[in-house]
Amino acid sequence: MKKYKNALISVFDKNKLDQIAHYLIKKKYTIYSTGGSSQYLKKIHVPHIEITKYTKQKEILGGRVKTLHPKIFGGILATNSKNHQSELNKEKIINFDLIIVNLYPFEETIKNSTKKDEIIEMIDIGGHSLIRAAVKNYLKTTVIIDPLDYSNFIKNSPKTDSAKKKYAIKAMEQITKYDIAITNWFQGNENEIYPLRYGENPQQKANALIRKNIFKQLCGEKKLSYNNLLDLDAAVSISYSTNSKKHICTIVKHNTPCGASIGNSQAKSYENALDGDPISAFGGIVAFNKRVSTLTAKKLIGNYYEVIAAPDYDIEALNILKKKKNLRVLKVKKFKTRIEQRSIFAGTLIQDANNKKSKVKKIFGVNKLNIEKFEFFINVLKNIKSNAIALFDQSSLISQSGGQTSRVDSLENCLYKFKIRQKKKKKTRLFLFSDAFFPFIDSLKLIKNEKLNIDVYAPVGSKNDPHIINFVKENKINFFEISDRHFKH
Amino acid sequence: MKKYKNALISVFDKNKLDQIAHYLIKKKYTIYSTGGSSQYLKKIHVPHIEITKYTKQKEILGGRVKTLHPKIFGGILATNSKNHQSELNKEKIINFDLIIVNLYPFEETIKNSTKKDEIIEMIDIGGHSLIRAAVKNYLKTTVIIDPLDYSNFIKNSPKTDSAKKKYAIKAMEQITKYDIAITNWFQGNENEIYPLRYGENPQQKANALIRKNIFKQLCGEKKLSYNNLLDLDAAVSISYSTNSKKHICTIVKHNTPCGASIGNSQAKSYENALDGDPISAFGGIVAFNKRVSTLTAKKLIGNYYEVIAAPDYDIEALNILKKKKNLRVLKVKKFKTRIEQRSIFAGTLIQDANNKKSKVKKIFGVNKLNIEKFEFFINVLKNIKSNAIALFDQSSLISQSGGQTSRVDSLENCLYKFKIRQKKKKKTRLFLFSDAFFPFIDSLKLIKNEKLNIDVYAPVGSKNDPHIINFVKENKINFFEISDRHFKH
Repeated sequence: MKKYKNALISVFDKNKLDQIAHYLIKKKYTIYSTGGSSQYLKKIHVPHIEITKYTKQKEILGGRVKTLHPKIFGGILATNSKNHQSELNKEKIINFDLIIVNLYPFEETIKNSTKKDEIIEMIDIGGHSLIRAAVKNYLKTTVIIDPLDYSNFIKNSPKTDSAKKKYAIKAMEQITKYDIAITNWFQGNENEIYPLRYGENPQQKANALIRKNIFKQLCGEKKLSYNNLLDLDAAVSISYSTNSKKHICTIVKHNTPCGASIGNSQAKSYENALDGDPISAFGGIVAFNKRVSTLTAKKLIGNYYEVIAAPDYDIEALNILKKKKNLRVLKVKKFKTRIEQRSIFAGTLIQDANNKKSKVKKIFGVNKLNIEKFEFFINVLKNIKSNAIALFDQSSLISQSGGQTSRVDSLENCLYKFKIRQKKKKKTRLFLFSDAFFPFIDSLKLIKNEKLNIDVYAPVGSKNDPHIINFVKENKINFFEISDRHFKH
Repeated sequence: MKKYKNALISVFDKNKLDQIAHYLIKKKYTIYSTGGSSQYLKKIHVPHIEITKYTKQKEILGGRVKTLHPKIFGGILATNSKNHQSELNKEKIINFDLIIVNLYPFEETIKNSTKKDEIIEMIDIGGHSLIRAAVKNYLKTTVIIDPLDYSNFIKNSPKTDSAKKKYAIKAMEQITKYDIAITNWFQGNENEIYPLRYGENPQQKANALIRKNIFKQLCGEKKLSYNNLLDLDAAVSISYSTNSKKHICTIVKHNTPCGASIGNSQAKSYENALDGDPISAFGGIVAFNKRVSTLTAKKLIGNYYEVIAAPDYDIEALNILKKKKNLRVLKVKKFKTRIEQRSIFAGTLIQDANNKKSKVKKIFGVNKLNIEKFEFFINVLKNIKSNAIALFDQSSLISQSGGQTSRVDSLENCLYKFKIRQKKKKKTRLFLFSDAFFPFIDSLKLIKNEKLNIDVYAPVGSKNDPHIINFVKENKINFFEISDRHFKH
């Protein structure tokens, strides 16, 4: 049975170090320590051995290499097995029972510095390696990385395997988080924690990790909420998802477009978007694909919105918007979402973003949409919850329904909302988009019975395709295939 | 100017090693190598120096300590600065310009082994530390971790800072992923990659990370799809989110409950759930909170479903379900979702799951729901997309609407679907749940005008609360406050 225990102390954060050091001395540990930690221990009169005396290797490269030595790692990684222990004996390596290590503050440094050299110096190598080694051998070598855990260790030094494992898990979690921050920094995804008062609902605590500088809040006193960010996602996903030279305006409420329009005039696009569903637009988020003009700004302040988003603003436009104290005005960079993650009960779903450009193919009739409008309408459709049905006139969303469990319900609801609210448009040509195929003929019968001027765009792929195609041909319903399904749940 | 370059090779995966080794010799690199890699190089006649000859330190602890030595880490971490280089000279340390390192296959091992010792041995310490050191000093020391990159390096050895950075980023990404797997293993979240043919739509590649053993597929030839998993999440979130001794059955389509019922008989709960919307239920997912009985199974096979989920099955029930070749039957463990993540254009939203139990408070009338039913109805409501309105009879969901941009639209749609499909229930007492407050009186007027027997449950908190409360009192609408909002977007 071993009588004496050895601890290694190598910390950046000296907080509460006196507390644990005095305890270890009381418990007859021999303390080994590196550079700054050793100086601190001297100052508070804690007897210890400098690690360089033990390894016979001085610190080099300005502290870059201090602890990366077989006499240290052997002492951490050796198990209690006979083989390992006799090897240690032969090599004159001591066992470490406890290591107290924490890391250079990389995450704090990237928050406060933009100097590359300074940041790189804060990538901890030695301490990180010590911690991982102790995690691997946690049954023999306990690792403490958080000064807040010193008092726990003092009260309850871990004796069981599961108590020891808790220290290993905490250490592993923390260094993984540390490396995620480094990876993000290298990738140029410098994420910041964006403070949120709460999540989708007040009873849910929340946080956002936001790519640095992807948007900038130009005015408005309050920060964005969780639901603002979620709605902003849908709004800019539609307005920004095209290289069109035309003006696009999207209004989003509850993560769903209630208005969207494309055209040659920004102010007119905004008016058309608002006209799609003025009731829903109240308190919504408005996104433009181009610099916001003074005229648009004048029109915007006529309604109540939570957030305006655009690539930029005319100075005069911004001055107009600033007058509304509670209106948040954002300058949002162009972006490309590549990967989407989403938690489910069983784990995480990970998928490519739905960025594929769909094509259109005639089934019956003459397609009256140019490619620019077709793509814009698809982008709107993509952001309505499935089953999604969207109804457009020549330039704008005029009714939509989604979140329904049956396609025919969604269609009926979309047509109903159109009829009661947009009576004046009954004569114009309408374009109805469906996010997936019509499984039965019932939907097309509904469309036919409305006696409106509706061209239908939908994917095919149902077992009932032959019936559906026959039906549209017999009834002369203009019908066009969308090359891809666009579910969004 | 340095004339000779040094490379360190320490790999687990020997694939294509001959290719890069021969190239390095041609380019006059001096190769240093560890244990297994050195043996392999000998076999293919590549001249090199064994690392132990250079460090004068033999490998110890069965390979646990091979490269953790200042003469190696100094050579990796030293920059080209005068100070660093003169220190290397003094300490007789050579510069490493290139390291070729890959790691013990931890992730493969946890897939194939359950032996703790075997798995722990596969936590790479030395190689991992070498890689991180090279990443920190990537401008001087290039690191290759993937044999697939050898040919790139041969074609285009990195000269610019940005070319060198690419190798560092790839290495950092890979070792971070490696450590996430280790962290998950320690936490007991042994995730497995669940293969998905595609994501929400066929044009989206996808993957799922699933907690080991959280569900088991008992029959059905096909694996679950992305959308199956998403729907399963909603179905089990409702059926499992209570400790009720009653039987609960939930049917989900498009991530939304189209049927849900609570009662004393499982078969009857299923029939009631189906009756909520038999059209939508076709092709849906059915989840039970208790062992599925033979009687329930007999009823289930009368309809077409994609997935059945339950904690367990009677043997005879399973035999009945097995006869449907395409039906996937899952045994799902109880679970508690704590944190939800979701990608948006700007980053990631992270929030606590909406697990708080809401309370009910009378505003007008006598509450006729016991706490068990109230909680069940709330759990159904929580899983309908906002704005959500759900209509129940004494035990079951009989109509719902969500995904709407205005609350009154959602209410109108919910009532419309009820009236055309559930005429026979017009006389019974109904319970209408809203996921957030009614902002205006219009919704309550609609409810009143229906002349149905409807008790209303909704949060309050609108500026218009006084009007709304006055209105329900004047019109004797039974109205109860739900203590929390339950948005889900």
